[in-house]
Amino acid sequence: LQSKQPHIGTTIFTVMSKLANDHGALNLSQGFPNFECSPKLIELVEKYLRKGMNQYAPLSGIQPLREIIAQKTSDLYGISYHPDQEVTIVSGATEALYAAITAVVQTGDEVILLEPNYDSYEPAVRLNGGIPVYVTLTPENNYQIDWNVVKAKITEKTKLILLNTPHNPTGTVMSKDDLEQLAAIVKDTNIFIVSDEVYEHIIFDGHNHWSPIRHPELQKRTFVCGSFGKTFHVTGWKVGYCLAPQQLSEEFRKVHQWLAFSTVTPIQYALAEFLQEPDNYLSVSQFYQEKRDKFIACIQGSRFEWIPASGSFFQCVNYANITDENDLALAQRLTKEIGVASIPVSVFYHQKNDYKILRFCFAKDDQTLEIAGERLSKL
Amino acid sequence: LQSKQPHIGTTIFTVMSKLANDHGALNLSQGFPNFECSPKLIELVEKYLRKGMNQYAPLSGIQPLREIIAQKTSDLYGISYHPDQEVTIVSGATEALYAAITAVVQTGDEVILLEPNYDSYEPAVRLNGGIPVYVTLTPENNYQIDWNVVKAKITEKTKLILLNTPHNPTGTVMSKDDLEQLAAIVKDTNIFIVSDEVYEHIIFDGHNHWSPIRHPELQKRTFVCGSFGKTFHVTGWKVGYCLAPQQLSEEFRKVHQWLAFSTVTPIQYALAEFLQEPDNYLSVSQFYQEKRDKFIACIQGSRFEWIPASGSFFQCVNYANITDENDLALAQRLTKEIGVASIPVSVFYHQKNDYKILRFCFAKDDQTLEIAGERLSKL
Ligand SMILES: CSCCC(=O)C(=O)O
Ligand SMILES: CSCCC(=O)C(=O)O
Repeated sequence: LQSKQPHIGTTIFTVMSKLANDHGALNLSQGFPNFECSPKLIELVEKYLRKGMNQYAPLSGIQPLREIIAQKTSDLYGISYHPDQEVTIVSGATEALYAAITAVVQTGDEVILLEPNYDSYEPAVRLNGGIPVYVTLTPENNYQIDWNVVKAKITEKTKLILLNTPHNPTGTVMSKDDLEQLAAIVKDTNIFIVSDEVYEHIIFDGHNHWSPIRHPELQKRTFVCGSFGKTFHVTGWKVGYCLAPQQLSEEFRKVHQWLAFSTVTPIQYALAEFLQEPDNYLSVSQFYQEKRDKFIACIQGSRFEWIPASGSFFQCVNYANITDENDLALAQRLTKEIGVASIPVSVFYHQKNDYKILRFCFAKDDQTLEIAGERLSKL
Repeated sequence: LQSKQPHIGTTIFTVMSKLANDHGALNLSQGFPNFECSPKLIELVEKYLRKGMNQYAPLSGIQPLREIIAQKTSDLYGISYHPDQEVTIVSGATEALYAAITAVVQTGDEVILLEPNYDSYEPAVRLNGGIPVYVTLTPENNYQIDWNVVKAKITEKTKLILLNTPHNPTGTVMSKDDLEQLAAIVKDTNIFIVSDEVYEHIIFDGHNHWSPIRHPELQKRTFVCGSFGKTFHVTGWKVGYCLAPQQLSEEFRKVHQWLAFSTVTPIQYALAEFLQEPDNYLSVSQFYQEKRDKFIACIQGSRFEWIPASGSFFQCVNYANITDENDLALAQRLTKEIGVASIPVSVFYHQKNDYKILRFCFAKDDQTLEIAGERLSKL
């Protein structure tokens, strides 16, 4: 079999989680919580399993889940999506991203990626014949997007811009001003936007979630890819969704139909009921802000310098004044020698730029964060 | 958005299920059971939900599920797949098919499809730039495959042959002789095989499951796409898998990683435990053979002529001696007027060949089959 794809080793998430297990290290690498979800949510899945909701869901997802997502989007941002035509439930945000990219990208199309970025974007673009075009964000200016640089990368072939807010791995969020600058760039073009918003409900310090759908010039060309795994502490349930205007949703659904057809039914019903109570998602930002503050307090005694961030459950830290090891080497050494696993941020750059930054996931119980802090302070 | 894909209306499964609902008809169209799965299986999902198995599974699937699938394959067919490298758990057989096709098919490659066929094959080929090449099977010779016709369609560009046994919609199964003829054709070529085997455990009248992996010349080039939805009466759980030799599995996993990353964790654990008891899957053929016999008995008093079949939970019937309506029109009329929904088999042919055949799903409780039989006898 002649490979269509470049050789890839095991993903960094698998590598670091395995290394953490092998060495009995605290696993602050892969992004998932080490605590349980709400018992109420488990009961709801059980209720619908027992009610016999175990056959195919409709390909667009079950009606109550599409409706409550539309309702929530309208309540929070004042933007209306038609639950029947413009909301689609899929098997996790990774599928949403892949399907949206597949719906839009044709051979030879250019796709602008803002790096560092999550590792599925580029392969999804390439598998569809697209050409990634990179805009590099750096810690020096706190990962802010210079929209003049983005503008300079746009050509006649630019088909899509991929956004992610709140941002993995850096924890930055987009601002209203970002949206306005982007709108000025894309108006009068046929450029689409795919916006990865899986950390929508994990935003700190009074910041708002500035999804591109909050600007009309952007909304009409945007596929939002969302999920419930991070919001409700169930990364293994794999229910995501896509919001997009009708014509975009139609193309999205065609792809979804052949890619997965439908998504696990009893969990869709459970989520639909759990979402009826807004506090279940509105309380999550506060919960994770406390985790973030806790983690920062725990590493205060260390020589790591934390980089201010406004969302997600990741904290990046700079270690340049401790050692000049490369970040992958350091992440491995910390796992083996002091027992704390992290992700080297270079893996999120296509040329593996090493700015001496590690990413820690603070979705962990307090005790784990405390011990991690103690261990990291030894360095 | 300029569409990459031909316009498609709503799928026939959605159309007929909706029509059935709107008219209060018995829904023998879309393939799913109207009865419950084993209570034991529900309890197992609950057990693992409560044990906290709610975070990301490994991208290849959880170890116990990969192991029991390898074990079962070895026990039943004497063929060994390495659970770590050659078995991959995915989000349903539709994803398995899409990922296998994506792993193999490059722009301009030809893919041989034996029609009638399930409706996701062609779009998955086309979305990857492949060119479908059809071999048409007809009821006149009971949908048997003429391998000379297949051979005549092979060119230098042929990259893949798609198989499906037991077969949806016709219920035919491949034989050992089919495998030998196919092996003679593909040996000394680089042609791959994707084999859709979701009805593996629904085979009647003492027939065997002749998966292409049972012939060494075929096994080395085959991706088996399987699932548990049909076997365990849970079509809405969306857990499937792919079996393939190591190098093929590697390419498959790369695609799966970007398409879905991983599959719903608590259900994987439940299935792994349920599969420990072979009777849970070995008893299914007998169960459905009785359903098939029941359905045939129920329509014995009608003027429909049933077409002998050896597997799946579908029964095709010929209505040529009743009316010369086209099959789509008749399927709609039967739903509205006599209250029984079916699928017109023409939808499974790329040129909508109408051989006056309807497909009925007999995965229904006995009372539903009895009433359906009475209603169909009115015609
Ligand atoms: C899908 S595994 C990676 C989880 C994650 O989102 C991350 O750690 O960045
Ligand atoms: C995925 S909906 C179609 C179900 C099915 O396999 C069929 O009815 O053929």
